[in-house]
Amino acid sequence: MHIMALTQPCPRGWLNELDQSSRGYTQAEFWKSLARTCERGLLDAVFIADIMGIYDSYKGSWQPAVQHGVQAPHDDATLVAATMAAVTDKLCFGVTWNTSLQSPYNTARTFTSLDHLTNGRIGWNIVTGYVKNVEDNGMGQLLSHDERYAQADEFMDVVYKLWEHSWEDDAVVRDRVRRMHADPSKVHEIHHKGKYYSVKGPHMCEPSRQRTPVLLQAGGSPRGLAFGGKHAEALFTINPTPEKAAESVRKARQAAVAAGRDPSDVKVLAGVCLIVGRTTAEADEKYRAAREAISLDAAFTLFGGWTGVDLSAYDPDDLIETIKSDGMQAVIKNFTYVDPGRAWRVRDFGEWLKGGTLAPDIVGSVKEVADELERWMRVAGVDGFMVQPYTTPGSHEDLVNLVIPELQARGLFRTEYEGDTFRERLTGADPRLPQRHPAKRLAIGSGRT
Amino acid sequence: MHIMALTQPCPRGWLNELDQSSRGYTQAEFWKSLARTCERGLLDAVFIADIMGIYDSYKGSWQPAVQHGVQAPHDDATLVAATMAAVTDKLCFGVTWNTSLQSPYNTARTFTSLDHLTNGRIGWNIVTGYVKNVEDNGMGQLLSHDERYAQADEFMDVVYKLWEHSWEDDAVVRDRVRRMHADPSKVHEIHHKGKYYSVKGPHMCEPSRQRTPVLLQAGGSPRGLAFGGKHAEALFTINPTPEKAAESVRKARQAAVAAGRDPSDVKVLAGVCLIVGRTTAEADEKYRAAREAISLDAAFTLFGGWTGVDLSAYDPDDLIETIKSDGMQAVIKNFTYVDPGRAWRVRDFGEWLKGGTLAPDIVGSVKEVADELERWMRVAGVDGFMVQPYTTPGSHEDLVNLVIPELQARGLFRTEYEGDTFRERLTGADPRLPQRHPAKRLAIGSGRT
Repeated sequence: MHIMALTQPCPRGWLNELDQSSRGYTQAEFWKSLARTCERGLLDAVFIADIMGIYDSYKGSWQPAVQHGVQAPHDDATLVAATMAAVTDKLCFGVTWNTSLQSPYNTARTFTSLDHLTNGRIGWNIVTGYVKNVEDNGMGQLLSHDERYAQADEFMDVVYKLWEHSWEDDAVVRDRVRRMHADPSKVHEIHHKGKYYSVKGPHMCEPSRQRTPVLLQAGGSPRGLAFGGKHAEALFTINPTPEKAAESVRKARQAAVAAGRDPSDVKVLAGVCLIVGRTTAEADEKYRAAREAISLDAAFTLFGGWTGVDLSAYDPDDLIETIKSDGMQAVIKNFTYVDPGRAWRVRDFGEWLKGGTLAPDIVGSVKEVADELERWMRVAGVDGFMVQPYTTPGSHEDLVNLVIPELQARGLFRTEYEGDTFRERLTGADPRLPQRHPAKRLAIGSGRT
Repeated sequence: MHIMALTQPCPRGWLNELDQSSRGYTQAEFWKSLARTCERGLLDAVFIADIMGIYDSYKGSWQPAVQHGVQAPHDDATLVAATMAAVTDKLCFGVTWNTSLQSPYNTARTFTSLDHLTNGRIGWNIVTGYVKNVEDNGMGQLLSHDERYAQADEFMDVVYKLWEHSWEDDAVVRDRVRRMHADPSKVHEIHHKGKYYSVKGPHMCEPSRQRTPVLLQAGGSPRGLAFGGKHAEALFTINPTPEKAAESVRKARQAAVAAGRDPSDVKVLAGVCLIVGRTTAEADEKYRAAREAISLDAAFTLFGGWTGVDLSAYDPDDLIETIKSDGMQAVIKNFTYVDPGRAWRVRDFGEWLKGGTLAPDIVGSVKEVADELERWMRVAGVDGFMVQPYTTPGSHEDLVNLVIPELQARGLFRTEYEGDTFRERLTGADPRLPQRHPAKRLAIGSGRT
């Protein structure tokens, strides 16, 4: 079972009295403490969400996001990863980075540097931009949803060429006698010329332990799923029930096969929120406090950011069928699946979103939560979980202090770290991408120097 | 006296047997060790050089840079800074970041994040891009030298507006009762519309301890000096003698005054290489070994990167007067100043450059080196030194273990850290920019929310 702990360099859950993220996210000690907790729990990785821009669909303004502390203000995820990595040895890091807003040449350097500094403990959560106001802030032009994925596909080609095909493994020789630090005949230009990018190379960096970081992705749309099936080594899905998650797992494995990969080349992790008590009553009390800290405005702000739909145009008691938006249909379908007979209203969305995520809550005693995770593994066939926090600290401490020991006692979770790199931990195989991954099948341009 | 230690995430001095940078620069432990050494020595800061692209003027190719390990391969400076910061409390960091290759909106977030995570220990070494091949790698179009500075000037306006004028100090209220994380009426759009940039804002990040990082700069051209006089809080100069450095100091102070600032608002640090022994003989032996590790090809590669001049078109014995290039004249003037009667040849450049820097060598016993630093302070009127390494580890350990105690014994260097932030350490005043700095005098657009 693979378990990653989600976090984000912004206030998150700040309305809950137990949460310290609103002050903590700007402080190194907050991140170092979280890193040590997750490493103590032998978690696979910390997954660091990131976003560029401030959500501004709800009420047509960025003000609700700022007022309610909805992923705003927000710091940089790569620097948080470097901070956490500096005080850990085994814990891995999934770092969010946006193909729509960055150049592939620079991106390749950033992730090679991270993989160097962590000795292979880095993954990349591949996202494409979707906050409108990045355009107003001079961060490039956003494309349509499908074209964004076409652009991202080409972006991947470029970084793969730089990571996998530019420097040979034995290029760096450090030969003082011949005065040769690296052999230029083993360093290759990539000569990429495509629709969106033109990059000559070579890569600025020598190969890191993993070369290509572990590739992570969350997109759930048909185009996003095809992208994930082709590129991703781990996919994150949000589903209300394990039965529904089983569909996501099946689709992900199909998408991998369609891209010429093995079905198991894509691990699927289910997003969940765990509310754990030493007793059921303690868990219920925690859950009650967590639910009290839900703000409808915060939820609608987030929802607007995701879908472009401004729910301020509706009454909280409106039935959701009255909301006409293509962007919302997938969410609505997923959302109502859990209770299709119910008359879902706008306010139900807000409560479901909890100001942060659509991931289902698993509430109970240690035993009950472990039972439920076991059921998810069995029914959904997922490879593990992406645990989303209600509060930091709090949620991940409960995971590590309460849930992990129970999973270990049941023989479901590791009792020591295996593998040094993120890819070894995830796949049990090599630190490098397998030969059947599309990155390996690319050819670089004719201009081998 | 202010002392900063220069380093760079690449092989540097690798031909010297004592140097470990070629393997070390990719490893967190190498950086953590250097950070601890510099903090133990109470240095003001580590200054992390950076470059995007691979030097390619010499022989018209990037191959010499790769072969000789001349700032290639090269990792990312911001991530190295975060790594070093995570294991120190007081040491500060000057991080190189290029206005030609980045967007101001993203830049503002990167440095606010670094300043958050270090609690105010961050400076920004402002550079403009100059390696031709970044264009071939899709990193934008390079402008002419003077236009680059015009662009950089506007870039500074944008980041100043984001850092200094977007979020008021008391914008973040974290009021659970009113469900208000931040008061949007105290968060302002900046509405910047200029020749190069259009950025609406607001800043994505809440203010950090220093708001604007300490502004560092090294440009020596007339346009560069005007830029530095306007923006920089510390300027780095490379001069062969303290008498020549006195000119740089005078010009820097004049440039500050011309920009409406106090002469002492710009600290001037002289670049030096220290080769220190317990005895003069030990120092001489170290120096001999260091000189042996000099490669003419490496020096010419570096020189080509700086000036665009391909010295492979010349014989090493050619007189430098025969080289016609505007870009080289300033360097030649500076270079020959130390011994104007000598017939300087092309190979002399290479030896002077030592594969890494034009900074003068100060070679001797602890006492002799300390005497010479005292003379530089007195004759040049500099505020301190930027110490450049021959080897890592080695040079900075000698600085901390041998030179610093001698300077302390003479009452010339601090015996404990004063001030928590970089700006307090440098100026003795506030963590924030003084009111007379141009950043403070900017007005944001009319659209206060």
